[in-house]
Amino acid sequence: MSRFMNYAIQLAQMVNGQTGINPPVGSVVVKEGRIVGLGAHLMKGDKHAEVQALDMAGIQAEGATIYVSLEPCTHHGSTHPCVNKIIEFGIKKVIYAVKDTTLVTKGDDILKEAGIDVEFQFNEAAADLYKDFFTAKRNQIPELTVKVSSSLDGKQATDFDESKWITNKQVKEDVYKLRHEHDAVLTGRRTVEADNPLYTTRVPDGKHPIRIILTKSGELDFEQQLFKDTASEIWIYTENKKLKNDENHIKVIYMKDCDTTEILKDLYQRGIGKLLVETGPSTTSQFLQSHHLDELILYLAPKLIGGSGKHQFFKTDEVIDLPEATQFEIVDSKLINQNIKLKLRKK
Amino acid sequence: MSRFMNYAIQLAQMVNGQTGINPPVGSVVVKEGRIVGLGAHLMKGDKHAEVQALDMAGIQAEGATIYVSLEPCTHHGSTHPCVNKIIEFGIKKVIYAVKDTTLVTKGDDILKEAGIDVEFQFNEAAADLYKDFFTAKRNQIPELTVKVSSSLDGKQATDFDESKWITNKQVKEDVYKLRHEHDAVLTGRRTVEADNPLYTTRVPDGKHPIRIILTKSGELDFEQQLFKDTASEIWIYTENKKLKNDENHIKVIYMKDCDTTEILKDLYQRGIGKLLVETGPSTTSQFLQSHHLDELILYLAPKLIGGSGKHQFFKTDEVIDLPEATQFEIVDSKLINQNIKLKLRKK
Repeated sequence: MSRFMNYAIQLAQMVNGQTGINPPVGSVVVKEGRIVGLGAHLMKGDKHAEVQALDMAGIQAEGATIYVSLEPCTHHGSTHPCVNKIIEFGIKKVIYAVKDTTLVTKGDDILKEAGIDVEFQFNEAAADLYKDFFTAKRNQIPELTVKVSSSLDGKQATDFDESKWITNKQVKEDVYKLRHEHDAVLTGRRTVEADNPLYTTRVPDGKHPIRIILTKSGELDFEQQLFKDTASEIWIYTENKKLKNDENHIKVIYMKDCDTTEILKDLYQRGIGKLLVETGPSTTSQFLQSHHLDELILYLAPKLIGGSGKHQFFKTDEVIDLPEATQFEIVDSKLINQNIKLKLRKK
Repeated sequence: MSRFMNYAIQLAQMVNGQTGINPPVGSVVVKEGRIVGLGAHLMKGDKHAEVQALDMAGIQAEGATIYVSLEPCTHHGSTHPCVNKIIEFGIKKVIYAVKDTTLVTKGDDILKEAGIDVEFQFNEAAADLYKDFFTAKRNQIPELTVKVSSSLDGKQATDFDESKWITNKQVKEDVYKLRHEHDAVLTGRRTVEADNPLYTTRVPDGKHPIRIILTKSGELDFEQQLFKDTASEIWIYTENKKLKNDENHIKVIYMKDCDTTEILKDLYQRGIGKLLVETGPSTTSQFLQSHHLDELILYLAPKLIGGSGKHQFFKTDEVIDLPEATQFEIVDSKLINQNIKLKLRKK
């Protein structure tokens, strides 16, 4: 495995979560074994990674090799196609780690036609970075992660709403990282009311996700601390035509039918590429049933809570027959100071 | 520990070994939790890391935080002082991981005087990257690593010169990485004659170190494959005034006295910041006795070779009394497919 491809992927990982509906991409230009340019795609609308790296390399790019974490693009979007720039700068060889299945015209083909040596060097870490990007782009739906903190018996909180304290401090820090890596966090009205959460990223210099609130009824108390917090925007989806708010950082989005898929489509159109659902039982259950679910992050505290069933994180009208129950694959499990973190993907 | 400081250090590590007598530095500019610029010092004479990152950030740098792996410089060298650029761009906060003890005027002080918030956030990985840089700069001597491949009983080769095969394939690949990370590799005449080595970095797109040959007598056979190989320059240190070579990639440096320290000083003046000594018993023994030695990398193959003592890698006229023997600290030990790699530093 090439050291320089690793660097390109490291650069991509650095900007993961800040590129909206665009993929996080990193790139390194190498000449005679030396890095002469490096770059990453910093935000949608800004230069692509290859362009950043080529601009840094300047005339040194002539005859050099460029490493890119993802196949160079061929489309005229908010910026020019990367393949043109690669050809213009006189690059001799292009090495990329993941094929972009959403491209109508393949970057690989165009570069080869231009006489450039092109090598597809598959890389697992890079593939992992883009695993949900292609589906998201094809369906125009954000990459969807649901996060749940629960007791061993599947309760998000006791019946007395003490949910804030169910997992430990280290898990809370891990959740801040999750928020940093998503464009937006979605919650329901009842959680806002009960927990009064801020949904910010309380780590040094962390990026605060846009906060999305789902409330069909529109019964919100704008005096709560969340609405006073201007760290990032708050978007409210409601079926209540009368709900209004004039604050600059608050946006009320009326929908005749607050259907999960319709909300997801609308969020994508507004530039949300990665959505984290972090909320109470009813909205959690709603999104866990969406066929757009990509990942479930489950933090388990080693406690048994019991109760009458009010706060179980997955609630449906009837118990689902085993053959129909959603089946997950555990892709990672980690012990975080006596709490367990499970990363799961729908089978 | 800050995620962005980690990124700045990752960037520094990417350019480690390609900055000559300058330190490898990485930098990230962050605004509202988003990376708006990133950079690394690519080579001596080129822009410093902070400047690369600030240029990428442009007007976004106003009010932003800059993370740097090393304290920003204050001197007018081949480029302007980084502190000036940081002030000009309107940076609000500077966070750096290692203090630059070689600066006459402290970057930290100047930035604070300019009203910028400055935070020294010590980082062990960054400190490790610069541990020998400060001494090297102060003494104007390259960072010096000696590499030895040996049997368990301290023999670099059998008495029949089969040294090339003493360690396994994975160790050879590790040695290629070592070469990539050094500006130059030094060897003696006898090794060139016996082993006919190329001293190149046989990894994809690896950087070939400059090859230094030490030969007081100047008895070299320019027909050997090493001298035909133009992958990188070859510099020959000799006391033989008559030694000449007209090839473009070969440089003969005459010295009245080929003393270890004098050679090291001359190499530093020629831009060699990191030197790897990779040679046979006599030159190895000479450099292992230098008080400028920073690191010894010892690869041990699980073999016993014995012999008459001709090929022991550390040879002196007399056995050294134990209290006077050089004492090392093992900073790292690693099993590489049945060979042991020890990283040692002089105590």
